[in-house]
Amino acid sequence: MFSERIERLTGSLIREILALTQREGVISFAGGLPAMEAMPELDLAQAPQELRQYGTTEGEPSLRARIATDLSRLGRSCAADQVLVTAGSQQGIDLASKLFVDPGTPVLIEAPSYLAAIQSFRLFGARFIALPLSPQGIDPAALRAEIARQRPAFAYLIPTFQNPSGYCYSEATRLEVARVLDNARVPLIEDEPYRELNYKHVDHVPICAHLKAAPWIYLGSLSKTGMPGLRIGYAAASPDLVPLLVRLKQSADLHTNRLGQWWADRFLRNPDYPAHLERLRASYRARRDAMAAALDRHFRDFARWEVPAGGLFFWVQLNRPLDSRVLLKKALDRNVAFMPGEPFFPDDDRPRGFLRLNFSHADDEAIEHGIRILGQVVRSCLD
Amino acid sequence: MFSERIERLTGSLIREILALTQREGVISFAGGLPAMEAMPELDLAQAPQELRQYGTTEGEPSLRARIATDLSRLGRSCAADQVLVTAGSQQGIDLASKLFVDPGTPVLIEAPSYLAAIQSFRLFGARFIALPLSPQGIDPAALRAEIARQRPAFAYLIPTFQNPSGYCYSEATRLEVARVLDNARVPLIEDEPYRELNYKHVDHVPICAHLKAAPWIYLGSLSKTGMPGLRIGYAAASPDLVPLLVRLKQSADLHTNRLGQWWADRFLRNPDYPAHLERLRASYRARRDAMAAALDRHFRDFARWEVPAGGLFFWVQLNRPLDSRVLLKKALDRNVAFMPGEPFFPDDDRPRGFLRLNFSHADDEAIEHGIRILGQVVRSCLD
Repeated sequence: MFSERIERLTGSLIREILALTQREGVISFAGGLPAMEAMPELDLAQAPQELRQYGTTEGEPSLRARIATDLSRLGRSCAADQVLVTAGSQQGIDLASKLFVDPGTPVLIEAPSYLAAIQSFRLFGARFIALPLSPQGIDPAALRAEIARQRPAFAYLIPTFQNPSGYCYSEATRLEVARVLDNARVPLIEDEPYRELNYKHVDHVPICAHLKAAPWIYLGSLSKTGMPGLRIGYAAASPDLVPLLVRLKQSADLHTNRLGQWWADRFLRNPDYPAHLERLRASYRARRDAMAAALDRHFRDFARWEVPAGGLFFWVQLNRPLDSRVLLKKALDRNVAFMPGEPFFPDDDRPRGFLRLNFSHADDEAIEHGIRILGQVVRSCLD
Repeated sequence: MFSERIERLTGSLIREILALTQREGVISFAGGLPAMEAMPELDLAQAPQELRQYGTTEGEPSLRARIATDLSRLGRSCAADQVLVTAGSQQGIDLASKLFVDPGTPVLIEAPSYLAAIQSFRLFGARFIALPLSPQGIDPAALRAEIARQRPAFAYLIPTFQNPSGYCYSEATRLEVARVLDNARVPLIEDEPYRELNYKHVDHVPICAHLKAAPWIYLGSLSKTGMPGLRIGYAAASPDLVPLLVRLKQSADLHTNRLGQWWADRFLRNPDYPAHLERLRASYRARRDAMAAALDRHFRDFARWEVPAGGLFFWVQLNRPLDSRVLLKKALDRNVAFMPGEPFFPDDDRPRGFLRLNFSHADDEAIEHGIRILGQVVRSCLD
């Protein structure tokens, strides 16, 4: 009765987890929710009436121009007509799946990688080539070998403050990865929603800025720096891909909501924008440090982690590969939630003993309280 | 390099047409744009700050409840948790394609049918079973025969003020179509963006209201009665389909923008809503009548049409099956645009001599002027 892709439709576990975390009294380290108190005000009094009418599939010209300028400043020379405004960067992943993935198509990803990207690629039938991720990024030699052996349709990478690991590719790795992709003409899908959430100075350019021959799609989001409820993201792309992405977008929803685009344009052009980012970084840096201190107090005996230089997550590896989905059930009994690590690997059945802990949403007190309880839960399972 | 579906990606013709119609001085009967002057005011001063945060994939509870109530009043008993708020009803079509269509999947549609639905189903690989459409609807006996012969994955129907034809299924046809679908358990996708735009009293219930056994998806939109720029539509569905649609939606964009949902909920609950609809109908009825009079003056010798009881379009058939795409080029030279009829048929290569003329966007004077010029263009091609 249904399409064959429906057999590959996943997501219920995560949906159930996130639903549980909404319960009154639960301290949640599960989602990637920005802090309400760190968001800009929603001020729409100036919104012009023209926004009521249908807009263009590509997006509002002024916003596209601004995004192109920002990306060019980052080193990725880009014209406004290479930018497509999307319904969050998630839609960019959906469009990329449609563009590249048939049943059986080999797709190269990091292991671990962003859960909802894995789900989207899988839905369309991807066969995953998963490269292990270290704090410096993937191994370019391994990338070259897998490309030669399996010829993936594209490489999906999150080089800056990766979700879930928080890792940030070194400049040397970026250059070498770009060289490998260029030589083989393998398209890059580079997902960077966390780039601006840096807690120490990081000036690595996007990998796509180093590309000279390979096609690329660069995904960005206003959800982490601005407000996610408006659903504004973007896909910038090499000129060969843009017309295809635009037509896929047209078929998906005609265009992105114009009110959110208008707000996003004003937000990015506001003279206060750099100061807003600094305030946001200061706020999240403090929470990251609070969680680092709490983990030191309550997890040091049985786990290890890197303190992330940016992003929204700690990626905690237990010394024994417990099934963190089992841990989650016990933690929820005590009103603490986190994201189990297993679903971030394309083969998500094997217990791996990873926990993804978000530090942006709970306040300092809740962080200390929640990490203490979570530590007790883990310890009781290790004994 | 790309997925095989990209070979089936269409849409450039229409995009080019719509781009041309944006030129200064062009009178456009091409799009399905609502009139700005008939839209409600965009007033967002009361929008609460909570809307900034991520929302649920299903949509805002209050809006879902309101839509369920309205649909239940129409005769289709429906609970709030059967409603999924979407990015326009176009997204409902994308989700339905993902749910049902693999390469080669037989899909039953009306001929003609909504262009962007044809494009979406085709993108996913649909093989079309096209039933001729008359002013009373499709022939239920033909529907039964094609179901028996080809077993389509679903029937996609636009029974009320169809796009492009403007036709409205009779009550008898609705009942009989429902019976045929029920007996064969063939899912119905019922697309009704134009239901409220009725210019004489029509109280036909949706076909899905008559279903007792077949799965169904009912697509609605706020774009025609409210404002399209916010991109708010919905998919209500039988309980067996809802969890699948929700997970497909999650993978597509996480959720629909919350500001538009908030506005839509207030709009539907505003005590002025019924009066707004009456004003809108009066305004569009007058434009429909202006176009009917202009067609009588300038098209009577060489074409025929029905005056539509609702919706936004005249569907004009020339007495000779000219290629209306050729006509369009000549009309654009004289600064008048319309939508050629050919792409509304799944086999869009054969010249058919149909023009779709929108009457909601141009004012009375532009309607008379544009139809007069268009009549001259057609006549010169017929001579």
